[in-house]
Amino acid sequence: MKKYYIGVDIGGTSFKIGLVREDGTIINKMSYFVKNSAKQEEMIIELAHKILDFIKVNEIPLDNIVGVGIGCPGSINSKLGVCDYSNNLKWYDLKIVEILNKYINLPIKITNDANAATLGEYKFGVGKNYQNAIMLTLGTGVGGGVIINGKLYEGNDGKGAELGHSVIKLNGRKCTCGRKGCIEAYASASALAKEARSIVNKHKESSLYLVKDHLTGRIIFEHANKGDKVANIIIDKYCYYLKEAILNYCNIFRPDLIILGGGLSAQKEVLLSHIVPCMEKEHYGFSNTPKVELKCAELGNDAGIIGAASLLM
Amino acid sequence: MKKYYIGVDIGGTSFKIGLVREDGTIINKMSYFVKNSAKQEEMIIELAHKILDFIKVNEIPLDNIVGVGIGCPGSINSKLGVCDYSNNLKWYDLKIVEILNKYINLPIKITNDANAATLGEYKFGVGKNYQNAIMLTLGTGVGGGVIINGKLYEGNDGKGAELGHSVIKLNGRKCTCGRKGCIEAYASASALAKEARSIVNKHKESSLYLVKDHLTGRIIFEHANKGDKVANIIIDKYCYYLKEAILNYCNIFRPDLIILGGGLSAQKEVLLSHIVPCMEKEHYGFSNTPKVELKCAELGNDAGIIGAASLLM
Repeated sequence: MKKYYIGVDIGGTSFKIGLVREDGTIINKMSYFVKNSAKQEEMIIELAHKILDFIKVNEIPLDNIVGVGIGCPGSINSKLGVCDYSNNLKWYDLKIVEILNKYINLPIKITNDANAATLGEYKFGVGKNYQNAIMLTLGTGVGGGVIINGKLYEGNDGKGAELGHSVIKLNGRKCTCGRKGCIEAYASASALAKEARSIVNKHKESSLYLVKDHLTGRIIFEHANKGDKVANIIIDKYCYYLKEAILNYCNIFRPDLIILGGGLSAQKEVLLSHIVPCMEKEHYGFSNTPKVELKCAELGNDAGIIGAASLLM
Repeated sequence: MKKYYIGVDIGGTSFKIGLVREDGTIINKMSYFVKNSAKQEEMIIELAHKILDFIKVNEIPLDNIVGVGIGCPGSINSKLGVCDYSNNLKWYDLKIVEILNKYINLPIKITNDANAATLGEYKFGVGKNYQNAIMLTLGTGVGGGVIINGKLYEGNDGKGAELGHSVIKLNGRKCTCGRKGCIEAYASASALAKEARSIVNKHKESSLYLVKDHLTGRIIFEHANKGDKVANIIIDKYCYYLKEAILNYCNIFRPDLIILGGGLSAQKEVLLSHIVPCMEKEHYGFSNTPKVELKCAELGNDAGIIGAASLLM
């Protein structure tokens, strides 16, 4: 009897469902757009039906499926299976596992989406063969995941590993979490775009000036790669912030590996060529410390599905 | 056959040796001053003889002793049993476990002194009955210890948990580690005294002005308790820095407990009355997050011996 897993990647606009083998291979996947107008409980009931249909279409007997793993954005209580709050989805105190279990008679586990991506990269992506790993997902926010001795560390009620919400600048930029100066306010893709907008406005000579109303992380990196000076100054500054955050996590966890994920991790060459030499130069602030590898995620958009499925492995 | 443990607490000026029972009780202890003029290897050979003499005096057969645990300041490679570097002791690449094992035929383990104190408090002090705990030792520096699922987490080669060497102020105060803006540069007892000196010099009306050349953390807290306004401003500022550091570790680890240790933890009432309400008010930056308890260490000077002995338990 072969073992299969269902991995669900909940996003702000679409939900993805995947059928995953024990070796992390996705056999089949589907996605659908969600109606944001729907009631939150109805969205979960719809998800239950989509999962059941998906299993049926793939002709896998329920007995061969180990369970359903879910990665969900926001503040997740993994012990109770509840999404306490999700900003993007406007969910509040949503008992996801309890509702799904009314329709699906399988073990169901849920975690924060950054945790799921971390687990996916750790088990089947760039993190294979390491023991302790940290992941920072650089997107709209900065998510975090922590692997300690090969296991996901979630903290009390699954509320730990909020690696983006650690202050690196006392009384600094306002963060979405209410504090001031968090890593997220400096190292997220949104923070990069925001800082770029304020700088580009003063630099008509920059090639970014023409696209200043549509700045994204990707565009800024593109212009920097093409040699625009202002874009390069912006990227240098961004990499400095990110490097300081990374060095903090070197000292706190001294892991074997730090993984950069999320949208900006596609800028692998630029990020690594900027940050790795600084890490080596500063030697993480200590002499005689073991090397921490820095790598970019490699599972891309599949990390969520694979990581969610891994929750059951 | 009763089981006993030897705990060794290596300090900058004196070494302590304790005979510890399985329940964490110290049956007997001794300490001796070290000659800083001695060669580093000779200091360890002397320690070996002191341990053997201590065991003999206590009339415990070697068979009844499980092993020797050591807490040592500085950068320790716990895997290899080596002190890579200790600033206070001027040790460099000192193979402590290898040398001791030439004289003592027992299992010997070593860790950083803050790790040892954390383990002691966790197993037999204020941390009993918790699962995940973080400790910050507030002394000359800021040391750190991390307990994950009941076990000491040391990071690669024992070089993790340097919780004092995480930047909270980008480009801030110079830290002993070479970086700028580390927690240690704001929340250590030395940082407190240094900041106080610069403030008090401008405030002749403060009761601290008369003792401005002998300022220590304890003295500043004493004057604040007696109502000196300037001393209270200094303490408020110090507590703000410490609170921000604590909130960072709430978000990173979401532990059940954060323990404050080191010399300044004797100021329990003031520290807790300042910081706990802020933690509750800021809710760690998130709604719906589980409470993190904040407590001061309770084993006092014995935490080092007990924690070191715990390495073998």
